[in-house]
Amino acid sequence: MLVRRVARVKDVVEEALRLVKPSQEEVNAVNEVAKAITEMLSGEVRSLGLEGEVTLQGSVAHNTWLPGDRDIDIFIILPRNERYIDMVKSGELIRELANALSRRGINWVMNYAQHPYLTLAYNGFNVDVVPCIRMSMGEKPITAADRSPLHTLYLRDRLRGLEDDVRLLKLMMKRIGVYGAEVKVQGFSGYLAELLTIAYGGFLNVVKAASGWVPFRVRISLTAHGGVRFNAPLVVIDPIDPNRNVAAAVSLDSMATFIAASRRLLKYPSMVFFRDVAPVPRPSVTAPTLVIYGDYPRGYVEDIVWGQLRSIASSIWNIVKRDGFKPVDIGLYTPQDRYVVIMITVEEAELPPLEEHVGPPVWTEESDVFISKYIDSGDVIGPFIRGGRWVVIRARRVRSIKDSVLRGLKAVGSGVVRDSLLRGEVKLISSVAQVSELPPEIRDSALVFMSKRPSWLTKPEPG
Amino acid sequence: MLVRRVARVKDVVEEALRLVKPSQEEVNAVNEVAKAITEMLSGEVRSLGLEGEVTLQGSVAHNTWLPGDRDIDIFIILPRNERYIDMVKSGELIRELANALSRRGINWVMNYAQHPYLTLAYNGFNVDVVPCIRMSMGEKPITAADRSPLHTLYLRDRLRGLEDDVRLLKLMMKRIGVYGAEVKVQGFSGYLAELLTIAYGGFLNVVKAASGWVPFRVRISLTAHGGVRFNAPLVVIDPIDPNRNVAAAVSLDSMATFIAASRRLLKYPSMVFFRDVAPVPRPSVTAPTLVIYGDYPRGYVEDIVWGQLRSIASSIWNIVKRDGFKPVDIGLYTPQDRYVVIMITVEEAELPPLEEHVGPPVWTEESDVFISKYIDSGDVIGPFIRGGRWVVIRARRVRSIKDSVLRGLKAVGSGVVRDSLLRGEVKLISSVAQVSELPPEIRDSALVFMSKRPSWLTKPEPG
Repeated sequence: MLVRRVARVKDVVEEALRLVKPSQEEVNAVNEVAKAITEMLSGEVRSLGLEGEVTLQGSVAHNTWLPGDRDIDIFIILPRNERYIDMVKSGELIRELANALSRRGINWVMNYAQHPYLTLAYNGFNVDVVPCIRMSMGEKPITAADRSPLHTLYLRDRLRGLEDDVRLLKLMMKRIGVYGAEVKVQGFSGYLAELLTIAYGGFLNVVKAASGWVPFRVRISLTAHGGVRFNAPLVVIDPIDPNRNVAAAVSLDSMATFIAASRRLLKYPSMVFFRDVAPVPRPSVTAPTLVIYGDYPRGYVEDIVWGQLRSIASSIWNIVKRDGFKPVDIGLYTPQDRYVVIMITVEEAELPPLEEHVGPPVWTEESDVFISKYIDSGDVIGPFIRGGRWVVIRARRVRSIKDSVLRGLKAVGSGVVRDSLLRGEVKLISSVAQVSELPPEIRDSALVFMSKRPSWLTKPEPG
Repeated sequence: MLVRRVARVKDVVEEALRLVKPSQEEVNAVNEVAKAITEMLSGEVRSLGLEGEVTLQGSVAHNTWLPGDRDIDIFIILPRNERYIDMVKSGELIRELANALSRRGINWVMNYAQHPYLTLAYNGFNVDVVPCIRMSMGEKPITAADRSPLHTLYLRDRLRGLEDDVRLLKLMMKRIGVYGAEVKVQGFSGYLAELLTIAYGGFLNVVKAASGWVPFRVRISLTAHGGVRFNAPLVVIDPIDPNRNVAAAVSLDSMATFIAASRRLLKYPSMVFFRDVAPVPRPSVTAPTLVIYGDYPRGYVEDIVWGQLRSIASSIWNIVKRDGFKPVDIGLYTPQDRYVVIMITVEEAELPPLEEHVGPPVWTEESDVFISKYIDSGDVIGPFIRGGRWVVIRARRVRSIKDSVLRGLKAVGSGVVRDSLLRGEVKLISSVAQVSELPPEIRDSALVFMSKRPSWLTKPEPG
């Protein structure tokens, strides 16, 4: 039985390998584009009279990119001096480069992380062009981007032979929804997947290790230095900077999802962890779910939008609870970057007409105020004494989940996402049929959210 | 304003005094009965060949009884030796006395506290005849009754001139429902009222002091000795036994009620605290209230019945809460000693069809069991991951408060009260009109419980 299972895990990995290995054709295409851009940018840097080394970084440099991945990272490494630091931070350098690219007829978009960078659309690829300041091992980075060249250096020899293992890990993480360190995902970055693969020595070993992980108890360090303490579900020390937790973005639920999927993959090996064929579910039982949606705010970085979404969701959760509802699950979606959507499932969408209201202990000054307030109310039962406190039963102020969420939303600090949601729509969905009342772009998300089962949590095939 | 209020408190006390002072006629009647029984018992004790001093104790001895009070306490104080201790504990002595009384044609009932005692019906009075063992100050009592003669001795001089103050205090405590140390009331014994009156020097001073009490922070000791610690809402050290808290029976809510009523009496002086004229309320708003009632179990001491009632009530409260209901208030009644009744008010008598069920953390062994259990269920949403745990939404097992209470009742350890309730009836009352569906004896209690406002918490009269 165990032997058969192990065999099956290996079979599955074998099969999945065929999905993650890019074809020679695709490899050639990526390399050609990378080479062309690197050379072109080297020329531009020189003709602008700048010192700077144009280098390939990221998953293309590490040879851990996934088939279909259209992203290439090019870094311009500049000397560590005041002039260049200013030029990078102010965006002056990137603007000059952008002008040069425009002159060549290449389309670009200026983006902003810790400092501005460019994204080029080139031959169907998205090429990020990121300036950074040269950093040596042990030096402090000036911006986060400065570490990338050292990462590539660190990985070069250590990753050799493990590239496909990284690819398997990334694909699995992608399929179970935990790949990416951005606020939207709060999951595992590519670099983190690479480090885990090195740390445990291969894809299956990462999965085996993760199946035994306990959040807040895992600390992985590839080098001797330890020291700094991090309070995070998962801690993976950056080998080139012991003060950085590479897994800082990984949320408890992303980690839990990876643990649960790893356990499941080992127990019931299946291609569901690698194939993107999960059909949109049609839940047979549905719990009352409020869907709030508004237009996706244009012109804002994704992390900003998602940061606001997450903070609004957490406020709504608390307010809804305080109002007496029992929230069961909250989901955030930005389908096709067309809408911002919050969905919240509760046990009960409409609360009873009366509510208990616990007042102050009878021996406090406030008790007099409490009595005065309620003794003349016609629609109040009590006040009476329970557990040493004055208590009344009064008409409930907020009875519907819709009112509660809208009140909560209005109480949230301002922000573009909040404003968009307030201008948007609120719909209570109590059955699958009602999903059709939502805009088409939102329906699939609603079905996925209402069915509430990870696509990879399937019934094991018999045998 | 303040002057007027003080004046009004004094006016009210003046008026209340007329209610608490027995008429000379009543005083004579009580004294005659007390004297007659004492002499008769002295003769019987002698003719049985026993040593023993027959003495008047309790509120008649202390001269703090209330008009209409038909209870007289007679104690037979016996020498402290093995023979008498055995005779008292075994009930031998009280049986011999009972036989002698029967020969005289006097009706008696044998009761049982720590040891047997008799209650005589005599000229319309209930006379408790209690044997006890002589105890000196500082000695350990053999039974709780042994302390009474020392109490009377202690109070004799100290209470002089304060008798009417004690009567006022007892009457107020009676009216607000906290007079009596029995399990039914969990309130203030007569002796406790006497000690408080001495400690603070009068009725109004007790009320003023109590208006500033904080439960678990009040410790009153009339003598120098302190020492023993008690964890009780109210601590009043017995001056004749520093190891005893005279207020041990006082529950938090009895103490809170006395605090609240004291504050109210001072703020809005009124005869509502002394007159027994509160009409049965007709609540205008009602919350769903389940009434469970059965026949009062005959032949059981009141403290046993009430002890079981209280323990059943506490179990029901917890079970109902665990089932997802929101209990607001629970009331216990034994109207006319005809029924045992539990009433429980909840925000909502019927819960929604689905409930959240939080499972184990994903990283535990139990998570596999949880998944296996729910993955094949047709009527379950999930499992999904939230906060690192597996969660499902499933059909709620217990939806009605009636089912929850009955399930809870069946789970309670056996007892006559439980059995009586299980044989009895359960009715959900949602409106005042429905109260008529209850047996006539229970209706007033139901209206009082459903209105949930102490009779003394009235709107202040203008002026």
